[in-house]
Amino acid sequence: MGLHTTLTSLLGIDHPIVSAPMGGVAGGRLAAAVANGGGLGMVGSGDLDWLRRECALARAGTEKPWGVGLLAWAIDDDVLQWVIDQRPAAIMLSFGDPTPHADAVRAAGIPLFVQVTTLPDALHALEVGADVVVAQGAEAGGHGEGRATLPFVPAVVDAAGTTPVVAAGGVADGRGLAAALMLGAAGAMIGTRFEATPEALLGDGERTAITGASAAGTTRDRVLDIVVDSPWPHRFTARTLRNRFTDAWHGHEDALRFDSSAKAEYRDGVERGDPDYLPVWAGEAVDLVTDVTGATELVGRIAGEAAHAMETVHANLGGS
Amino acid sequence: MGLHTTLTSLLGIDHPIVSAPMGGVAGGRLAAAVANGGGLGMVGSGDLDWLRRECALARAGTEKPWGVGLLAWAIDDDVLQWVIDQRPAAIMLSFGDPTPHADAVRAAGIPLFVQVTTLPDALHALEVGADVVVAQGAEAGGHGEGRATLPFVPAVVDAAGTTPVVAAGGVADGRGLAAALMLGAAGAMIGTRFEATPEALLGDGERTAITGASAAGTTRDRVLDIVVDSPWPHRFTARTLRNRFTDAWHGHEDALRFDSSAKAEYRDGVERGDPDYLPVWAGEAVDLVTDVTGATELVGRIAGEAAHAMETVHANLGGS
Ligand SMILES: Cc1cc2nc3c(=O)[nH]c(=O)nc-3n(C[C@H](O)[C@H](O)[C@H](O)COP(=O)(O)O)c2cc1C
Ligand SMILES: Cc1cc2nc3c(=O)[nH]c(=O)nc-3n(C[C@H](O)[C@H](O)[C@H](O)COP(=O)(O)O)c2cc1C
Repeated sequence: MGLHTTLTSLLGIDHPIVSAPMGGVAGGRLAAAVANGGGLGMVGSGDLDWLRRECALARAGTEKPWGVGLLAWAIDDDVLQWVIDQRPAAIMLSFGDPTPHADAVRAAGIPLFVQVTTLPDALHALEVGADVVVAQGAEAGGHGEGRATLPFVPAVVDAAGTTPVVAAGGVADGRGLAAALMLGAAGAMIGTRFEATPEALLGDGERTAITGASAAGTTRDRVLDIVVDSPWPHRFTARTLRNRFTDAWHGHEDALRFDSSAKAEYRDGVERGDPDYLPVWAGEAVDLVTDVTGATELVGRIAGEAAHAMETVHANLGGS
Repeated sequence: MGLHTTLTSLLGIDHPIVSAPMGGVAGGRLAAAVANGGGLGMVGSGDLDWLRRECALARAGTEKPWGVGLLAWAIDDDVLQWVIDQRPAAIMLSFGDPTPHADAVRAAGIPLFVQVTTLPDALHALEVGADVVVAQGAEAGGHGEGRATLPFVPAVVDAAGTTPVVAAGGVADGRGLAAALMLGAAGAMIGTRFEATPEALLGDGERTAITGASAAGTTRDRVLDIVVDSPWPHRFTARTLRNRFTDAWHGHEDALRFDSSAKAEYRDGVERGDPDYLPVWAGEAVDLVTDVTGATELVGRIAGEAAHAMETVHANLGGS
């Protein structure tokens, strides 16, 4: 039972499900497992050494299509060229202006995904020739901005004409996937749900934190970037699980920037694995994530649930 | 062509569409027009004089079911009793603890809707015997809190068992309604889209501001409450259109509280109809609201679009 969309035809995949690139978390084993389930698995983001290792694992783990996600603001031309040379089934640029990199991807004939967080950025992605626009809402895990997926996706769909749009943020099961398709999306990009798989590169403490967390236990801010002096552009905040440290510094990020003792306290806490400090990027969809399931099985489960949701509602689409 | 759900059976309506109570905006003409289109129209919220006038208009305008929405934190027992005596098809309590009022509504045999913004409040609504739980996301126009509709609705559905859940926040067309149904909701409550109807109690300037606005032109904060010393509980912020005044005070609400010259400046600006000061409550769905359409026609249009979205996606639910 497949759900055919412009995304599944573009990529030759069975289900309109893309596992999100997740910095340091979405390695080659996860991407291969998703691909083997009939979705598109994404490797990334990471530095060249990390990408070398993880792309090799993806290639070794599947014969099916998998892609690579890169951070537009952080890209190094050598890394981009190396990724292009791997001939992944798709390359996604997220967070920042894709302009300097889009042509190289397109010239190589590799489908270009651009993940966007605002309507002007969606229009810009179309201008630089994105083959797929990923519209991300602020309920998403990890970095992002301020829109909400449900009203954002149809606005991007209206702007995108025939270019496929993928919904990202808040989708964790087949109900969410079916909803994304109703909004006019050609598929969903799913991150948080795939963190709770054995294939995700996470420690057991982080995985357990995710299956146990509720959405109210997430926050969106810059704490985890600023505490490690990360150069993320100011515009993007990140949704993470709350802990004692994020609760203390949420809304006081500017002060944290110059507080070297708080930074040292954080490093120590993380090093000893103290849950009060454990950094876990995850989205509001954690409410819906209560078990750890293999990624291959998960893709099939989500696709099946989506079909079921559609059959159920459609059956009530009566006459009279 | 109807879309049958537990909500449409509970209320005996044709379409699983509820027009939101919108303080001072959703009067009897709007509620009647929505009811005549086959949805449930909601009158409210407002004081007793306002409710007397608007409930009379609703009754005069339709023979079909309409309801009344009240603010739980602001309820006066006399108002509640008066509303119960009108025998509306539903009474909704929003924002604040429904406990002190729920029994009176239930004892009268009137379906009790409770609008919630968090999962704990959804559980509480079920405990006090809500017949319908309305799960509202922060993309909604007007007052609300922090969740996003797309992941919040399925979490409430899972908690609600057989109690119908209605999605509120970000739904402005049939794609959004169809998405809400896929998430497991039995219908959608729609506010912002119904502001752009001739029946909504808004000035032309406000209506034009809504059809011309983009979601990036909305903000969520306490500015418009604090500037008029409104007693809204601190917990709830409101999504409104941005203007020069809200841009100046967003994030500085505590200072505004004690700034009587800024309050006077605001009152003057509003009085002379200056768009830099015009208060307009509206949600992220404004991106999708570009025309003014009669509310009766709109209900049919949204239901038709939802059916179309479902037919289209369902047709691609292939074998193999
Ligand atoms: C742990 C984690 C790390 C992420 N890292 C990246 C990244 O490196 N690059 C990127 O484009 N998006 C990243 N994202 C965002 C995803 O691309 C995607 O938008 C998001 O996961 C979708 O929302 P969801 O988490 O609700 O499924 C990350 C998300 C998570 C949860
Ligand atoms: C102008 C306006 C006024 C509102 N006033 C109320 C109100 O008085 N009581 C209430 O329960 N909800 C109120 N709401 C919220 C709605 O009940 C509903 O949650 C919201 O409109 C749904 O999101 P949407 O605006 O994206 O359709 C208001 C919304 C708007 C747009």
